[in-house]
Amino acid sequence: MDELAHADLGPRPFARWSDPEDDATPVRGVPVWLARRLGDLTPRAPVPISAIPVPPSGLSPDAAAEFRQAVGPAYVETEPEARLAHAGGQSYTDLVRRRFGYDVAVPDAVIRPASHDEVLSVLAVATKRDVAVVPYGGGTSVVGGVEPVDGGHRAVVTLDLSRMDRLVDVDPISRTATFQPGVTGPRAESLLAEHGLTLGHVPQSFPRGTIGGFVATRSAGQASTGYGRIDDMVVALRVATPVGEIRAGTGTPNAAGPDLRALFTGCEGALGVLTEVTLRTRPTPEERHYEMWAFGSFGEGLDTIRGLVQDVDAPDVVRLSDEEESATTLATQGPKGRLAALLARVRGLRTPALCVLGWEDTAEGVRRRRQAAARSLRASGAIPLGARAGEAWRRHRFEGPRQRDILLDAGVLVETLETATTWSRLRDLYDAVSRALRDSLTAAGTPPVVMTHVSHVYPTGASLYFTVLARQLPDAAEALEQWESAKAAANEAIATHKATITHHHAVGRAHAPYLVHEVGELGVTTLAAVKAHLDPRGILNPGVLIQASPR
Amino acid sequence: MDELAHADLGPRPFARWSDPEDDATPVRGVPVWLARRLGDLTPRAPVPISAIPVPPSGLSPDAAAEFRQAVGPAYVETEPEARLAHAGGQSYTDLVRRRFGYDVAVPDAVIRPASHDEVLSVLAVATKRDVAVVPYGGGTSVVGGVEPVDGGHRAVVTLDLSRMDRLVDVDPISRTATFQPGVTGPRAESLLAEHGLTLGHVPQSFPRGTIGGFVATRSAGQASTGYGRIDDMVVALRVATPVGEIRAGTGTPNAAGPDLRALFTGCEGALGVLTEVTLRTRPTPEERHYEMWAFGSFGEGLDTIRGLVQDVDAPDVVRLSDEEESATTLATQGPKGRLAALLARVRGLRTPALCVLGWEDTAEGVRRRRQAAARSLRASGAIPLGARAGEAWRRHRFEGPRQRDILLDAGVLVETLETATTWSRLRDLYDAVSRALRDSLTAAGTPPVVMTHVSHVYPTGASLYFTVLARQLPDAAEALEQWESAKAAANEAIATHKATITHHHAVGRAHAPYLVHEVGELGVTTLAAVKAHLDPRGILNPGVLIQASPR
Repeated sequence: MDELAHADLGPRPFARWSDPEDDATPVRGVPVWLARRLGDLTPRAPVPISAIPVPPSGLSPDAAAEFRQAVGPAYVETEPEARLAHAGGQSYTDLVRRRFGYDVAVPDAVIRPASHDEVLSVLAVATKRDVAVVPYGGGTSVVGGVEPVDGGHRAVVTLDLSRMDRLVDVDPISRTATFQPGVTGPRAESLLAEHGLTLGHVPQSFPRGTIGGFVATRSAGQASTGYGRIDDMVVALRVATPVGEIRAGTGTPNAAGPDLRALFTGCEGALGVLTEVTLRTRPTPEERHYEMWAFGSFGEGLDTIRGLVQDVDAPDVVRLSDEEESATTLATQGPKGRLAALLARVRGLRTPALCVLGWEDTAEGVRRRRQAAARSLRASGAIPLGARAGEAWRRHRFEGPRQRDILLDAGVLVETLETATTWSRLRDLYDAVSRALRDSLTAAGTPPVVMTHVSHVYPTGASLYFTVLARQLPDAAEALEQWESAKAAANEAIATHKATITHHHAVGRAHAPYLVHEVGELGVTTLAAVKAHLDPRGILNPGVLIQASPR
Repeated sequence: MDELAHADLGPRPFARWSDPEDDATPVRGVPVWLARRLGDLTPRAPVPISAIPVPPSGLSPDAAAEFRQAVGPAYVETEPEARLAHAGGQSYTDLVRRRFGYDVAVPDAVIRPASHDEVLSVLAVATKRDVAVVPYGGGTSVVGGVEPVDGGHRAVVTLDLSRMDRLVDVDPISRTATFQPGVTGPRAESLLAEHGLTLGHVPQSFPRGTIGGFVATRSAGQASTGYGRIDDMVVALRVATPVGEIRAGTGTPNAAGPDLRALFTGCEGALGVLTEVTLRTRPTPEERHYEMWAFGSFGEGLDTIRGLVQDVDAPDVVRLSDEEESATTLATQGPKGRLAALLARVRGLRTPALCVLGWEDTAEGVRRRRQAAARSLRASGAIPLGARAGEAWRRHRFEGPRQRDILLDAGVLVETLETATTWSRLRDLYDAVSRALRDSLTAAGTPPVVMTHVSHVYPTGASLYFTVLARQLPDAAEALEQWESAKAAANEAIATHKATITHHHAVGRAHAPYLVHEVGELGVTTLAAVKAHLDPRGILNPGVLIQASPR
């Protein structure tokens, strides 16, 4: 996966995903087009980082000394720069706070262990000294998963796992690879490419995200239909907890009681720190082919892709946009509206639903599977738009966060949220969440554009991914409240429809209050009982996954 | 799945799997052939059931009255017949005890709830009255999962779930079906067949096993390569615990923290009682095709089936026998050794390894996938033996337990055990476990026949299933000790090789002491912490999964 191996972005700027000057690929017409739809926007540059106040580190000298002993003096950083660099994740609200210099929290120190044993030592010191520990991979959480929250403890440190970036072992016979948690997506692909292998796990966070983060958040990549979710790839885990080590997984599925891999896949650093992850790999595909199709409507598209995943042989990537998202694509990509005009004039499709389909396989596999899918697609009346549009999507698929930077500069509220449910409930859920978002933001005086796609399909159901854009309110507190209200309305709609609060973004702090709708009071207290057993002082990522109980 | 819908066996005899008189399919030459290999066997009929002493029920009148209130007076049975009918599972040691009338434990009562709420009520009474509860589906456990063990509580009751046998709901769009736990395998297939659907989950226990049991033991069916393990089919669960209800699963995979479905899939009734199970279904396959191939050796077969599952498109059923098991098949099945003679004379294969491959798919799917597999098989030098031998295996695939009855009557020790590991470690594990079994039984003066097959293949590894036969020692205590020593030797070999203690038989009481090798001390105490939270008095299936701690 050569192209993937080179997706690494280098250090992240403070209030952006990527440095605009480093951005080799120009981001195209989206912002201009959107500005027209959202009304008068007020461009807004981030405040300089020097304007962000950083309080002195609250770490006691004794605790600091013991942490230094655990990982070496150079790897306990208390300077403002390192602490600011770990001031939360990449959600819209994280970025708003950093851009406005409003309510930016920083950890008391950043600790960079180099091994499983060093992680165990750090957790022992933290337990003894009552210091909260926030495990940190690529810092790409969009659900408040890496915010430096002390949870009532004496201090909070960020446990930056970037030094643990080795490929520990490859088993070419069993096609598994064991990584340390801090290996980024591109680095993992680059290391595996030397063995002719790939993970094929490409979430939007891929360029900065880490193996540990992918597993801790139970993520799903854009090609999850073909390669599986990260849950499907986890063969074994090694976990450091405040009370010792857990190893889960023996190389194959088995029946040895509840599968403990599932307790730590998705633990979000609240039950332990992943220190070694063994994943299933596959041979690098011989061929990749992406193409685009147009359906008469989102509904027709849903029925057809359901047929593909239930009865045919689903492509490895399936991404169906609703009419609104398709209109944006048609208006802002490709040869200036030509495709839209063609669809309207020749096919009578004025509001099509576009769909990207991708195959990564042997040449023969791609050929055969494309043919089988094409038969179903044509039977449903879908119109092929060819490989150029599909390949364009693939080339630009990690650009979302860069486009967001530009939109934020332009004064746009821009955020995404996602859920999933069964095929039979999908349409109602889509309507309810879209309506909740529109109603909330319209009531705030900022009518939004809400665009949706389905990008993860299963035999039983599918995900829904909403992108929301609106004119950002000018004041930081107002801007935060503007989005938080809309998000709460969407969450209520999700809970009402018994869908999941998160298909692939994880729970973090943002969704923790809604977990009870999904797993019930007893589900939440069961997770809390596990946490109490493994983390008796509650130092691990307080408030993530399980809401903070009063201390 | 018509054939499957008719596999139901009716009531189970006390010391056998099936009533020999009901046995429509004659079991062929295996016993005769085996007798020759094992030396002088002494035929041994079970003692009459009337010879089994049944103590009076130890249930207090108050507890009995409250249980009657919970489920209705007719459904709390304390008569000897009902209690004897629930005296443990179907392991070799279970059957030896019942056949010899030696150390047969019976519950103090059998309770048959009709609903989730009744199960909750029973658990509340049991908690209040300090009565152990053993959840019971088809009673087919081979690991001591349904033995009536009081675990130091005042009494023990068996919670027979056979009245909870409804198909609660079918969602044809999402292709899911919700069952009560007591639905047997054949009944589930029969109910689904009305909707054109199937589960395709056919473990050896299928004719008597139940949906609840399949999920509680995290089982894998013979067609797991195609249809997936039960873990892969579980969409949602409803669980009754002594402290209330848990619902897990929202219809699709998600990222909402640790997947709680995995805590109850494989909970073996020790963490809760499954009261509703929603499973993924598939359309009834258009065509089924089974065929047999011969490899030059077990090793060649392993390399080739690994290639099928890693690089081609594995058949839905893959079952590769080692040379010893293949010799038994050739000696005892088919037209009296003709196949063996043919292989030896024409192909020079004196000790072939036979392999059953099966496809269940659309006619086109079967054709295409068979062709692709055949290319790989021929390239590896495998010899096609045709569909007749494959179909013979399919027709007789649920006969193992009947053959065992006959072997037990003939005075044979006959038991199976299984494990799994990665492809790279599989051969060493095979050698070590086979050797441990042979050495132990040879030391007991009863040199065994040990036959092995691989029947569940994954991209990362595969299962190993051992069938052990030896001359049974004449005394009940000696016979039990004879097998328990061999099993312990095998378990040690499994632990030494870091393989799983059970690929699909579950932990039960038989494997509970070995779980610590697999998930570590902290893994075991974490499960115990979950149990303490959900079952604070420890009434649920004491000693199963988690070894009894001193009370």
